[in-house]
Amino acid sequence: MERNISVTENGHLLLGGMDAVSLAKQFHTPLYVLEEDKVRSAMAAYRSSMNAYYDGKGLVCYASKALCCKELCRIAAQEEIGLDVVSLGELYTAASVDFPMERVCLHGNNKSLEELSYALDQKVGYIVVDGLTELETLSRLAKEKQVTASVLLRIKPGVDAHTHDFIRTGQIDSKFGFALETGEAMEGVLTALKTENILLKGLHCHIGSQILETEPFVHAAKIMMEFIRDIRDKTGVEMQVLDLGGGFGIRYTDEDDPVPYVEYLKDVSGEIKELCHQYHLTLPSVIIEPGRSIVGEAGTTLYTIGCFKEIPNIRTYLAVDGGMGDNPRYALYGSKYDMLLANRAAEAPSKTYTVAGKCCESGDLLGENIPLPEAKVGDILAVLSTGAYNYSMASHYNRNPIPPTVMVKDGTARVIIKGESLEDLLRNDV
Amino acid sequence: MERNISVTENGHLLLGGMDAVSLAKQFHTPLYVLEEDKVRSAMAAYRSSMNAYYDGKGLVCYASKALCCKELCRIAAQEEIGLDVVSLGELYTAASVDFPMERVCLHGNNKSLEELSYALDQKVGYIVVDGLTELETLSRLAKEKQVTASVLLRIKPGVDAHTHDFIRTGQIDSKFGFALETGEAMEGVLTALKTENILLKGLHCHIGSQILETEPFVHAAKIMMEFIRDIRDKTGVEMQVLDLGGGFGIRYTDEDDPVPYVEYLKDVSGEIKELCHQYHLTLPSVIIEPGRSIVGEAGTTLYTIGCFKEIPNIRTYLAVDGGMGDNPRYALYGSKYDMLLANRAAEAPSKTYTVAGKCCESGDLLGENIPLPEAKVGDILAVLSTGAYNYSMASHYNRNPIPPTVMVKDGTARVIIKGESLEDLLRNDV
Repeated sequence: MERNISVTENGHLLLGGMDAVSLAKQFHTPLYVLEEDKVRSAMAAYRSSMNAYYDGKGLVCYASKALCCKELCRIAAQEEIGLDVVSLGELYTAASVDFPMERVCLHGNNKSLEELSYALDQKVGYIVVDGLTELETLSRLAKEKQVTASVLLRIKPGVDAHTHDFIRTGQIDSKFGFALETGEAMEGVLTALKTENILLKGLHCHIGSQILETEPFVHAAKIMMEFIRDIRDKTGVEMQVLDLGGGFGIRYTDEDDPVPYVEYLKDVSGEIKELCHQYHLTLPSVIIEPGRSIVGEAGTTLYTIGCFKEIPNIRTYLAVDGGMGDNPRYALYGSKYDMLLANRAAEAPSKTYTVAGKCCESGDLLGENIPLPEAKVGDILAVLSTGAYNYSMASHYNRNPIPPTVMVKDGTARVIIKGESLEDLLRNDV
Repeated sequence: MERNISVTENGHLLLGGMDAVSLAKQFHTPLYVLEEDKVRSAMAAYRSSMNAYYDGKGLVCYASKALCCKELCRIAAQEEIGLDVVSLGELYTAASVDFPMERVCLHGNNKSLEELSYALDQKVGYIVVDGLTELETLSRLAKEKQVTASVLLRIKPGVDAHTHDFIRTGQIDSKFGFALETGEAMEGVLTALKTENILLKGLHCHIGSQILETEPFVHAAKIMMEFIRDIRDKTGVEMQVLDLGGGFGIRYTDEDDPVPYVEYLKDVSGEIKELCHQYHLTLPSVIIEPGRSIVGEAGTTLYTIGCFKEIPNIRTYLAVDGGMGDNPRYALYGSKYDMLLANRAAEAPSKTYTVAGKCCESGDLLGENIPLPEAKVGDILAVLSTGAYNYSMASHYNRNPIPPTVMVKDGTARVIIKGESLEDLLRNDV
């Protein structure tokens, strides 16, 4: 699958109708760029597909841990989708733009008292309970506040989705959720059903991240529907909500060939409807939680190339003005990215480079064996598909400030997250 | 080697004379705690050893990338040592407390124009030049400002110090410095000697991080002294400064058995003096740059245990209220840490745990197979030796705020870096 790149007449990369070289000049580098049309169209496509496949009973919750800021929350609200939040910080961000809280799911394997309490105060749609300790705490808090907590239980369906060890979460050996195989999940449901101030609305599962096939999702949906049947058979209670989590892969490089999510949604909804029919169950409200697949490919990071280091017979290092501080994914997971020279975007690659950052650490690399044209000092390097888990995982390592994020659309650019100043870096120093 | 832990009568961990449980209560968790006496005594021991071994011509520069904040810079100034800084942010931090700039070295494989310019304006003692492109840029800037830049050249001595791939920097395949073997280093020296507005004061090398033996340091010193001899023989110029970098290992767990640095300094100075004699060279001013070994063991992170997840026949997860956001070193390098229960510090371990954080990611672990007493919800978990590369590498992943750092000494505690508020997290959102 070839990537769709727009280039100006003079060979500059175009992002949202903006010349990437002009963006670099105006906002300086490193610079996170996000294409608004890509974000909105992904949200809209998910929403309309979910509506179609689930007869109006589908809800898309954007997993904001991929990239959380006020403007993304506003856009999600405008596109009439929900939010999946995983912390007080993300919930507070949503609240700060008056996000409709009935469309919010709160996740987390170890939610704090403050998070649970704030979620109840904000009347979030679903608190996804991860264990019995949390269920008790939530019940106590809800009782104190004289409210009922709407709850989903996080279930480990035991599906192994063949991704990187660090981002595989549906298997039994996980810090998340209740295991099906051991009976822990059924015990959790029975407990939740009789716990005061808790309304068990349904179930949640999440099988992993950056998954590029349909089959594990269909398989997980089947396991969850069987469990919903078993719960009905045992208790007479039908779960109203089935949250299937996220994990839909994106294209980082040519090696990735993600399933179009419409196709995934179709296959999964087919399975769910068939099983509802077979088990005599009412079609539940289905929630999905895409994050990476909404913002990942919409993002591009621009850097300026500062210098080179040729190691004879080994490799040529090219150093940029950012690195593991703004994108730690190569250091953490060995994640691969496509890159190009934004000021010479039409030129064919003729060399390979190891792309190093400016951090005082040898492991501060953004990629190895990266094909590029013969690069020069001052060239603008564009790293593609950086919309997810770049800004959100950024650090101040080496006391480098976190770069700004600009949103581009129809040839205009606006800052949606300001870059940090030197004063920002020292703000909390006493 | 057994770790020296102080415990109160009621079994609480003592840090700088403060009850760790009281600290957790007062400042909340997660909490970075730093013991001032350990920091100061490490700085003082390095300073006095360097003075003794190099006849008053030694300089210790604290590598502030390990942990940079105003108060650490103030303490380094009071202890009469220097600073090794690697960015505008670190340099700005030093300048903000009027640090004596003649004792500052600026490092970096890809320094920005702004960094070089600011370093010249601040009259830093040494700019450690990493390549010919930078040398040219610095010369041009110095000419514009009508000043002379005091320069060291970063040399790759080709020493392999057997540490983790990511933190091994002296070998030829590195993004840092001029290679000796290829003749690049000599070419760099010859060029620097004839470059306008550049005063080549000496050489720098850095062979890696967390090194636990003396031999690689002695070997690197020998290579550098031979190179100084070769430069003298070729040009008649004697290098006045030899900066041997850092990399002195610390004790993270019982498996680590670091060489006392006084012993390292003695061995290295013996070698250098012997070679000066043999090659008829004047003893150069020697600089070393310890970072981790000054603050690492002085730091402890306190967490509260929130919940458990027992995976039968596999492991028991214990979840704390922090994680890879405040300490990404296990996720990045698989780094091991000793841990104990701060509220039951005298109890012997009876189980092993996998310590998970609260981030919405399976890889968010702080350690595996960690021996602890049977732990309970509400116990305070202390992770030891977290003074280096924890706060400095911290991120806002999941929009969790970065915890405060408190300095403890003689039974008192003071905040030296304030914890982030929710407002801080959203400060730059538009």
